[in-house]
Amino acid sequence: MTELLLPDRGDALLLVDIQTDFLAGGALAIPGGDQIVPILNRYLARFVRRRLPVFATRDWHPPNHCSFKAHGGHWPPHCIQGSPGGEFSPDLDLPADAIVVSKARDPAAEAYSGFAGTDLDARLKAAGVRRVFVGGLATDYCVLETVRDARACGLEVVLLRDAIRAVNAQPQDGRKAEEEMYRLGAVPAELGDLIQGDPGASALLTDLYQLTMLQAYYEEGMTGEAVFEFCVRRLPERRNFLVAAGLEQVLDFLEDLQFSPSELAWLESTGRFTPRFLRHLEKLRFTGRVEAMAEGTVFFPNEPILRVEAPMPEAQLVETRVLNLLHFQTAIASKAVRCVLAAPGKPLVDFGLRRAHGAEAGLLAARAAYLAGFDATSNVLAGRRFGLPLSGTMAHSFIEAADSEEGAFLGFARANPGNAVFLIDTYDTEVAAAKVVEVAPALRAQGLAVGGVRLDSGDLAEHARRVRDILDRGGLRQTRIFASGNLDEFELQRLTAGGAPIDGYGVGTRLVTSADAPYLDCGYKLQEYAGRPRGKRAEGKATLPGRKQVHRRFDAAGQMEGDLVSLQEEPVSGEPLMEPVMEKGRRMAASPALSEVRKRLLGQLERLPARLRSLEAAEAYSVRISSGIVEMADRLSLA
Amino acid sequence: MTELLLPDRGDALLLVDIQTDFLAGGALAIPGGDQIVPILNRYLARFVRRRLPVFATRDWHPPNHCSFKAHGGHWPPHCIQGSPGGEFSPDLDLPADAIVVSKARDPAAEAYSGFAGTDLDARLKAAGVRRVFVGGLATDYCVLETVRDARACGLEVVLLRDAIRAVNAQPQDGRKAEEEMYRLGAVPAELGDLIQGDPGASALLTDLYQLTMLQAYYEEGMTGEAVFEFCVRRLPERRNFLVAAGLEQVLDFLEDLQFSPSELAWLESTGRFTPRFLRHLEKLRFTGRVEAMAEGTVFFPNEPILRVEAPMPEAQLVETRVLNLLHFQTAIASKAVRCVLAAPGKPLVDFGLRRAHGAEAGLLAARAAYLAGFDATSNVLAGRRFGLPLSGTMAHSFIEAADSEEGAFLGFARANPGNAVFLIDTYDTEVAAAKVVEVAPALRAQGLAVGGVRLDSGDLAEHARRVRDILDRGGLRQTRIFASGNLDEFELQRLTAGGAPIDGYGVGTRLVTSADAPYLDCGYKLQEYAGRPRGKRAEGKATLPGRKQVHRRFDAAGQMEGDLVSLQEEPVSGEPLMEPVMEKGRRMAASPALSEVRKRLLGQLERLPARLRSLEAAEAYSVRISSGIVEMADRLSLA
Repeated sequence: MTELLLPDRGDALLLVDIQTDFLAGGALAIPGGDQIVPILNRYLARFVRRRLPVFATRDWHPPNHCSFKAHGGHWPPHCIQGSPGGEFSPDLDLPADAIVVSKARDPAAEAYSGFAGTDLDARLKAAGVRRVFVGGLATDYCVLETVRDARACGLEVVLLRDAIRAVNAQPQDGRKAEEEMYRLGAVPAELGDLIQGDPGASALLTDLYQLTMLQAYYEEGMTGEAVFEFCVRRLPERRNFLVAAGLEQVLDFLEDLQFSPSELAWLESTGRFTPRFLRHLEKLRFTGRVEAMAEGTVFFPNEPILRVEAPMPEAQLVETRVLNLLHFQTAIASKAVRCVLAAPGKPLVDFGLRRAHGAEAGLLAARAAYLAGFDATSNVLAGRRFGLPLSGTMAHSFIEAADSEEGAFLGFARANPGNAVFLIDTYDTEVAAAKVVEVAPALRAQGLAVGGVRLDSGDLAEHARRVRDILDRGGLRQTRIFASGNLDEFELQRLTAGGAPIDGYGVGTRLVTSADAPYLDCGYKLQEYAGRPRGKRAEGKATLPGRKQVHRRFDAAGQMEGDLVSLQEEPVSGEPLMEPVMEKGRRMAASPALSEVRKRLLGQLERLPARLRSLEAAEAYSVRISSGIVEMADRLSLA
Repeated sequence: MTELLLPDRGDALLLVDIQTDFLAGGALAIPGGDQIVPILNRYLARFVRRRLPVFATRDWHPPNHCSFKAHGGHWPPHCIQGSPGGEFSPDLDLPADAIVVSKARDPAAEAYSGFAGTDLDARLKAAGVRRVFVGGLATDYCVLETVRDARACGLEVVLLRDAIRAVNAQPQDGRKAEEEMYRLGAVPAELGDLIQGDPGASALLTDLYQLTMLQAYYEEGMTGEAVFEFCVRRLPERRNFLVAAGLEQVLDFLEDLQFSPSELAWLESTGRFTPRFLRHLEKLRFTGRVEAMAEGTVFFPNEPILRVEAPMPEAQLVETRVLNLLHFQTAIASKAVRCVLAAPGKPLVDFGLRRAHGAEAGLLAARAAYLAGFDATSNVLAGRRFGLPLSGTMAHSFIEAADSEEGAFLGFARANPGNAVFLIDTYDTEVAAAKVVEVAPALRAQGLAVGGVRLDSGDLAEHARRVRDILDRGGLRQTRIFASGNLDEFELQRLTAGGAPIDGYGVGTRLVTSADAPYLDCGYKLQEYAGRPRGKRAEGKATLPGRKQVHRRFDAAGQMEGDLVSLQEEPVSGEPLMEPVMEKGRRMAASPALSEVRKRLLGQLERLPARLRSLEAAEAYSVRISSGIVEMADRLSLA
């Protein structure tokens, strides 16, 4: 059986009996039946847009049908051919080309299944259908029998568990019918499975080996307390320090971790896991303790920035996403802070969304850049989610589509008063700068000012000088010059050092991909299990055991002097950097505002030894490992 | 006003009158009131977990309250002090430390607002609250008046529009009350805004400049047809070709594009946009046409792989996400195919999720790697979403936590029969290999086989040779050797060329970050507007105008010989690569299965000139630009 839940070629939607008589006010109203119509409409939209076939069955009874009480059956008269009660719900968005299958037309035969006495099977196969997504009414009669026959016809079945409702003549009938359908091989799904909810919120966003290991941990009773620490093993080339980021999203993830019923049902359908294990997963929540460096803390290799202490299955399961979140934001914040150091005092804007590695990368890069000292982002959703200042004006296409550059400038300023920054490199930068001077009086007459111009190509320093001159001579001394296009910290430093008259920068692709160091050599490593320190000595990947603390010392002038990584219990002086942030799976305090995090980092940069502010590798900052750790590693024969 | 919707320090949840008398069966049941209780519980969970304060107001009337009909008021007696009807809903997950505020206790005074005659303001301020998230009953009375007073007290207000219900004595009362609250400065939000739904599904996942341009396009009446094309401008170093990927997600995005009411309300609250523009956005859907190269097509610089033809605002708005989706998957597929070429016939597994740039990057990298010829992924959610084969066994922590390596192997195999692959480099690779030989009989006795071993550090070729020898001598000739750890196409080629006895590889970080080329120089560029070709000549970024087609020619042996990029209407021979995939905003056919895409690409690799299969830069493949394009560029003075 395929594991894929997204509707695709070979799939069809099969709606069972969404008829007026089964809905509120109908002759045989099924409790809650109306609630599934809007849900079915959302499923319908997915199938119709993808041009996948839709089948709709209907009871289509003669007036003397044997299922009616007067004729010896169980039910009141319902869904009589041609009667209003037999019509599909007017609220159902059934497409015009839906294939309608009428059933139970024979007065003498009950027929709950859409396949009974119909050509449904043949029509499905003629349409190339190998799998049906089934929803409708009622779970314990027509849905159940339709699914049974679909399986018997060799079709795969996805049961839309949020789009069925039961009669429940006996209270458990619906539940029992659902279980029977799973026994028959139906795979459960919910709307969220098809519409692709936030992948970052799914407990399944993990490596398979976490689940295979967990199965063994539970089987072997290995549920004692485990201690894992995240640290970076070495600095990328040309880096002198790193900036911790991503803790906030890690805490969100730990608080929300939970397998949904549909995720559990899917895991079961893979055949890899035992029912006993799945019951463990169903109950699994993160109940552990977390210590961490605050976001925006400057740190160095071999220093833990996060420690998780929790029962082994919990601490193990979270590895993948904890790494995924801490690694990325730390990489970007560590890149962004270099841009900030390279262009002191200049406003920097994140422009990177389009070339970020997907949606979440774009969002979290905007957040990481801001906490590292950027001033704004072009990413609207990041602005909304994280309260970041937004910035942005126009693209070349806007200029190209207009009849003239001047016309484009005027039109844009009229539509966006207060945000008139003009892109001037579409055809000829200096010619366009002169046009800006020309249109300025017309704008002024309309109460509009030229806020700025943007350069996006060529020799930015040289263009900026010429444009500054043109603007100044044209009386636009207040008009600022922004620059963008293939920028990174090195280019920013070159422009700054050369005194280019540029007032602010947009930094995109190379920032959000951390282009010169797109990953960090980092890990989330077991330090202790069941009260005993643990480690490995895998070549080049050996770990230092124990629960650790990092202390930072400052010299008389307040500059950072050196760090000491020690065991938690060792008596050490200096400022401790790891602090408790979560107990029993819950945050110990509301998180600081991002603006506070940003301020804290900017404060730390002032205490950073001058040599470490260089964009090139400098003499390394002193990070010592305590004797306690070395002795413990010796005892474990790991060093 | 802050734009941030995620609850954070300084925020509180304020629940208005979730009392039994206002719910179904109560003395003053408000229509639909019960529906908001589960929604409020989800809001509550967010606040409680983040240790943010929760306030709950309640009507707490004396039996002779003036609002009761018998005492001259409008209402039946309700919420009398100490009566069952005055209690909070038993279904509401009110935390033990919620602060309860009782109001309207004075028989002589009506008091709808939670602030009227109470100490609510003082208690909020004592708790450091600057913003309240308000939900409850009823929109048109107590919620409205509470919000009014909150604003008057200087508090920011987020109105939970999915967690309020109105009495609607007059049919429009609720709607009018809501509008009044927005007028007072309340910002609307829905659950999805707080729980962070799929960021990739939000219309706000775009650059601000798209919206500022759209505002101008609508104002200026520039809604004619625009034609944009996506192409890559140049190959990364050491690459000879690229593989198109991501079209499927682009089509999903275009089909689903829509601004939600809460997104529109938020945009309005930023003050950047006019009501007229927001009405355009409310109606905006993608109604255009798309031509594209099929996913899995080999392509080259300056060849469009996607063309969008739509009214300018639609075609412009989608730029950011279209780039974001096509760029990333194309980059990863183009990297993955090199791994496939470097290790012919060897199973390759994507291990990259942990160091992918966020959740979506992990998912889409798994998809892109599979379509480029990888065999499986460790990413469970990608397995579920895209139907990819899954692979994975154990981490070092599993070995370290066990009392012995042998014990770990046995325990794992018992818990995962059929999936016994042992990680053997935790302490000493060869010693562990010998232990595998030792435990094999015990496993065999339990009906279990040793499927394989995995090496993850050190000199993989050398370890593999030694381990192969140990296994063979121990009678485990069927046991396979897998290798992982810092692999990429260059390392795979080295191992393959050296004849290392390795049966399969896990490739992670360097694959999913495309580490040697983490971004492509690509763009989505305007080719035509309102029937006229368009282009720019920005230095180094000049575009070729017109609607283009790419024709591929093959030599007698069936090898790819050269491509010609031409205007669509030029008569040209060869196999056309761009084909229509969307009309009027809807797919023209269901998409091919990913396994078909994969097969198509593997077929193309056989027709790729041998020199292009090299991992190093070879003589470039011939891509000619037609005379029609050159002449058009000349006419536009762009060339």
